[in-house]
Amino acid sequence: MTSCTVLVLGGADAAPPDLGRLAGRARVVHTDEKQLAEQLPTADVLLAWDFTSDAVRDAWPGDGPRPAWVHTASAGVDRLLCPALVADDTLVTNARGVFEQPIAEYVAGLVIAMAKDFHGTWELQRQRRWRHRETLRVAGSRALVVGSGPIGRAVGRTLKALGVAVDLVGRTARPQDPEFEQVRAAAELDRLLPSADWVVCAAPLTEENRGMFARRTFALMKETARFVNIGRGPLVVERDLVAALRERRIAAAALDVFEHEPLAPDDPLWDVPHLVVSPHMSGDTLGWRDALAEQFADNFDLWAAGRTPRNVVDKRRGYVPVD
Amino acid sequence: MTSCTVLVLGGADAAPPDLGRLAGRARVVHTDEKQLAEQLPTADVLLAWDFTSDAVRDAWPGDGPRPAWVHTASAGVDRLLCPALVADDTLVTNARGVFEQPIAEYVAGLVIAMAKDFHGTWELQRQRRWRHRETLRVAGSRALVVGSGPIGRAVGRTLKALGVAVDLVGRTARPQDPEFEQVRAAAELDRLLPSADWVVCAAPLTEENRGMFARRTFALMKETARFVNIGRGPLVVERDLVAALRERRIAAAALDVFEHEPLAPDDPLWDVPHLVVSPHMSGDTLGWRDALAEQFADNFDLWAAGRTPRNVVDKRRGYVPVD
Repeated sequence: MTSCTVLVLGGADAAPPDLGRLAGRARVVHTDEKQLAEQLPTADVLLAWDFTSDAVRDAWPGDGPRPAWVHTASAGVDRLLCPALVADDTLVTNARGVFEQPIAEYVAGLVIAMAKDFHGTWELQRQRRWRHRETLRVAGSRALVVGSGPIGRAVGRTLKALGVAVDLVGRTARPQDPEFEQVRAAAELDRLLPSADWVVCAAPLTEENRGMFARRTFALMKETARFVNIGRGPLVVERDLVAALRERRIAAAALDVFEHEPLAPDDPLWDVPHLVVSPHMSGDTLGWRDALAEQFADNFDLWAAGRTPRNVVDKRRGYVPVD
Repeated sequence: MTSCTVLVLGGADAAPPDLGRLAGRARVVHTDEKQLAEQLPTADVLLAWDFTSDAVRDAWPGDGPRPAWVHTASAGVDRLLCPALVADDTLVTNARGVFEQPIAEYVAGLVIAMAKDFHGTWELQRQRRWRHRETLRVAGSRALVVGSGPIGRAVGRTLKALGVAVDLVGRTARPQDPEFEQVRAAAELDRLLPSADWVVCAAPLTEENRGMFARRTFALMKETARFVNIGRGPLVVERDLVAALRERRIAAAALDVFEHEPLAPDDPLWDVPHLVVSPHMSGDTLGWRDALAEQFADNFDLWAAGRTPRNVVDKRRGYVPVD
């Protein structure tokens, strides 16, 4: 197997992964966006370590042979998949398992922070003003979690542990579910939106659901509803969300992902009232990069042994189906 | 029973309670700090609606008869109890049951906010800076909750639901506990402090534990530890906490209660680094005042029927013992 080449697409922002475990079994070659197309034909395996890059879809299929397996160090595969890659025999796997619990905690924290007006408290502290307010109870409120994959499920589970009633929405309905009684179909969304205190977007980005949170979706929400997006930016029509916030049609929102990342310093989103902006970090807890490298190495062990790696993406659907 | 007089000690900050349910059974008389001493002898029952006032302990026992029952619209009775009231036959009851869940949510929110650096995120948003950071996982961390009454237990329960390992500390040890395996004795605190990621003070204020969080306590904590006080201000020696934060001997703190409330605009606590200051509001969710009035009216029903009201305070200990 020493003739096997693992090509690692790195980025300027992240140190390369420690793949010492592959020593003697694979030649690890580091590349970047510019050189990817040239090096792609030499690779048996491609690790999309820089998961923010569009370089793979731009380079695919290229001329000559392609890797038999592509692994991305992210949960979403929307940056990676292009029609030619979907059509190819190439196996695609993702980082399912690394981000669920951190993201669920992050969303639970946002929900409580919004219920308890932590933002207002910190603003008043800056102004040295003691101003008591009455806040909201989290227990007894109702959340609509859109996305029934591992991240949506972890979010729902954590909110349930806080006493929140959770409706989980997936692509298709599942009349029975061990944790959530049932999973609702996306088609039911319009009916569910008006009763939600919290609407959390934890869906994968697919062509089917691009822009699903738009003017009419926000119009269906309560005026007191809060919206959270930890999925992917293009699931939300940002200008429609901004309008809904400015016109007080919903109460508040928090975005961790955006149509264009990173946000430029002059992006108008930075100071929309009642909007919290965070830099795509909800799932990234200390050690996450090591966990991602470890997960790829584990998967490489399976692949090198002729077995199927974990977290195989259904390329037509655009995500790893839940069992 | 129409000859029964319920004296309500109100304050400038809060509307008087709606006690319409007592109509025909009690004469409800509203008083304030200034007139309390004069009116005390006329009262069968005293409702300390303004629970921030020291007027009861100042007026007690006064000349002449005293109320047979005093109810305070708060969980803590530290403002109320004085040696003469402790020695009297007067029954004292509190607002146990109203604040537990809101406070537990509040603390859980603070824990997540500190783990995920929400404060840093909002500061960066103000500066229009996209700066990704790695944050902490909450699940798998360890909390020490000091106070094994209903509030401490609710806090512990909620943190456990988030995957936090919780040690609960009470006045005395309970070797068996249905929810927390065991309750540790206050004497064990020194041994437990060094392993806690989160130290939450949810204790009642008694003479025994006044100033219990002081220089030596903070010195025993991890440098990465975060401290939260939702109990009473004087449980903490504020200048020692400030020193611990300034010298980076602990990582961060959040105070909802203070030695002197409200904080004056020039109080140095407002801008201590890594300290979140909130205006004694952790338990106060929408409708809390109505819930407090309702709770008193329920207790009045019991009392008027010759039965013992709920939440009878052990005046010598200074709190309602957990069954």
